[in-house]
Amino acid sequence: MPDSDTLAFTDRPAGSVGVVTPHVARFDTPLALACGKVLPAYELIYETYGTLNFDRSNAVLICHALSGHHHAAGYHSEEDRKPGWWDAHIGPGKAIDTNRFFVVSLNNLGGCHGSTGPVSHNPDTGRQWGPEFPMVTVSDWVASQARLADHLGIERWAAAVGGSLGGMQVMQWTMTYPERVANAVVIAATPRLSAQNIAFNEVARQAIRSDPEFFDGWYAEHDTVPKRGLKLARMVGHITYLSEDAMGSKFGRDLRSDDLNFGFDVEFQVESYLRYQGDTFSTAFDANTYLLMTKALDYFDPSATQGGDLAKALAPAQCPFLIVSFTTDWRFPPSRSRELVDALIRAGKAVSYANIDSPHGHDAFLLSEPRYDAIFSAFMNRAAGELNLAEAGKDEASEDATSSEETP
Amino acid sequence: MPDSDTLAFTDRPAGSVGVVTPHVARFDTPLALACGKVLPAYELIYETYGTLNFDRSNAVLICHALSGHHHAAGYHSEEDRKPGWWDAHIGPGKAIDTNRFFVVSLNNLGGCHGSTGPVSHNPDTGRQWGPEFPMVTVSDWVASQARLADHLGIERWAAAVGGSLGGMQVMQWTMTYPERVANAVVIAATPRLSAQNIAFNEVARQAIRSDPEFFDGWYAEHDTVPKRGLKLARMVGHITYLSEDAMGSKFGRDLRSDDLNFGFDVEFQVESYLRYQGDTFSTAFDANTYLLMTKALDYFDPSATQGGDLAKALAPAQCPFLIVSFTTDWRFPPSRSRELVDALIRAGKAVSYANIDSPHGHDAFLLSEPRYDAIFSAFMNRAAGELNLAEAGKDEASEDATSSEETP
Repeated sequence: MPDSDTLAFTDRPAGSVGVVTPHVARFDTPLALACGKVLPAYELIYETYGTLNFDRSNAVLICHALSGHHHAAGYHSEEDRKPGWWDAHIGPGKAIDTNRFFVVSLNNLGGCHGSTGPVSHNPDTGRQWGPEFPMVTVSDWVASQARLADHLGIERWAAAVGGSLGGMQVMQWTMTYPERVANAVVIAATPRLSAQNIAFNEVARQAIRSDPEFFDGWYAEHDTVPKRGLKLARMVGHITYLSEDAMGSKFGRDLRSDDLNFGFDVEFQVESYLRYQGDTFSTAFDANTYLLMTKALDYFDPSATQGGDLAKALAPAQCPFLIVSFTTDWRFPPSRSRELVDALIRAGKAVSYANIDSPHGHDAFLLSEPRYDAIFSAFMNRAAGELNLAEAGKDEASEDATSSEETP
Repeated sequence: MPDSDTLAFTDRPAGSVGVVTPHVARFDTPLALACGKVLPAYELIYETYGTLNFDRSNAVLICHALSGHHHAAGYHSEEDRKPGWWDAHIGPGKAIDTNRFFVVSLNNLGGCHGSTGPVSHNPDTGRQWGPEFPMVTVSDWVASQARLADHLGIERWAAAVGGSLGGMQVMQWTMTYPERVANAVVIAATPRLSAQNIAFNEVARQAIRSDPEFFDGWYAEHDTVPKRGLKLARMVGHITYLSEDAMGSKFGRDLRSDDLNFGFDVEFQVESYLRYQGDTFSTAFDANTYLLMTKALDYFDPSATQGGDLAKALAPAQCPFLIVSFTTDWRFPPSRSRELVDALIRAGKAVSYANIDSPHGHDAFLLSEPRYDAIFSAFMNRAAGELNLAEAGKDEASEDATSSEETP
């Protein structure tokens, strides 16, 4: 049984899992991918928070979104001031309560944070995979995550949880391995991208691929990165992550100085914000990975093999679902979540749905908001109760799970 | 009195102004611009449709949008199959009825279709203006358009009409030269850009300016154009011109071939559409002009000098207004038009407002739609009636103007 990464640290801040150290698992059994290629071997980097219980029944899988990674909670050193990307929801006393659950968070195959991907060494060629890394799909990720579960001795997840692209992986889990998921939490996601969603991804891809420093994906061998393209891709992304209102109240038409400069330097605060986000991302994220992730998003459509019938695609699922959307999310708006909820109901599944009032657009899924936190916690508490998961250090059975989520 | 461009052609198709030839007007009086620079001389290219009446009271000004130009109606030759950009609304029997009105449509200063702009010769340096062409604002355009009116002997426009950025010019006319506008039509516009609007413009500018073939705006001297940047800018633009629903029903998730190709070639129809639109634009439009136009959009905010009070800014206006928005326009949504309507009402102006049910997003303003056409025609007919404009070839006074537009 793997130890919690966090056990060694006693002075962690309240509500935080403290300092964590990633693990790497290696898989030498070839993985056949949806694209027809076979990955002979691969590694997955992951972190864990909390303690796996004796019967290995308290494990929660975290699936990450487009630019996410394994570092979902805690800190990488005592000096580290920036916690993991979902620290708002993972930790002692939080929605995914590490006093109760053993949380597993990995970087997906094709990623650029330590799992095998385009920046990894390709044993067949002796060079980086680069653009030759095979296209990976949501199904491929779920298959690789199932092997990670095997590796950790986890037969069945107490819950699979994810937002955005992460939510798609959760959906896929309930269809591919229904008996291995006790609960599913799908946040700010969609059962398939719209034409507009694909269009924005295509702009991002064109920005990267038309950057002269992309070199058909072999930029590393030219000692460069397609910074301009990645920056543009991220700028477009950021516009779609924020609601128009959030952007308006955050920046409005505020100028960086008192007067217009009648030139092309930064003038409006929103320009400054976007350029900064773009610049930071352009040196921190791998372009080939970004391309792969957007394609995985575009391809996801479980209804496609069922003549467009999503309920039929979801028929194999066995667990209760919590679906969450946010009122001002225009990337994957509430209507897309309701499409999923309707299909689950038609398929006869147990589904709780909450549409959270938030001004923060798609980004809201990353943040803390009282009603979101309460509903997320209630669902996870009920899950813990039904699985008879005790709180760490307590002998009693789990607390009563309150049930405040909306059921349509 | 200038002749109509169309009089020479007798076999024009019904509802069309037929074949038209542009004119060029030269202005040698220096024009002081908002940015502080002075343009010593300039030319404006324009077209006219219909016949200017004896007392020069039937002239209608057409103001163009971001990538528009002077060619708003008719054809440039007998073989030309593509009419001007607003042919749906300008012509005999159309909303802007050329049997009644004399229509003037120009390319704005800074444009790339024949008016003085970045691609013109700078007499001071002996080279193209290029990136040294001064920043022009909506106010500057209106000032230059007023000189064109003087040149044509037009004291007062029967109507100033424009969509999107064109609507902003119409607003400016009613504030700068209230006595020279008898009626104002502002379609799919906004009294000022939101942070999200500015953000999209900034992505477009960054795409162009970071293209290595931009050469700080001196691409012409390097015998090249920043095609990649312009293509990306146009792709982003197109996403914002179409509604999500229109894109969905036009393309959905349709693939160009039966199977996924698991690569980065065009797969979805929407990708093909965007790439085509981007490619076409990238060789047809000048990058420096595109940059200038987006800045004029960003800067427009008549309320800024009035402490944010739009009603106060609009106080000088004297004419009746028709404001039109479209339900699925998310670039300048109905709420932005209502902001303008509310301010006009608070300022005590006569305003008619129609929110047109259309699936076509921002692009709807370019298209024909029965209710849009009817309301637009009714407003223009009433204007003609009040100005006692007779139909060409008729002795009687104008027909009764029906009044079907909504007044909030």
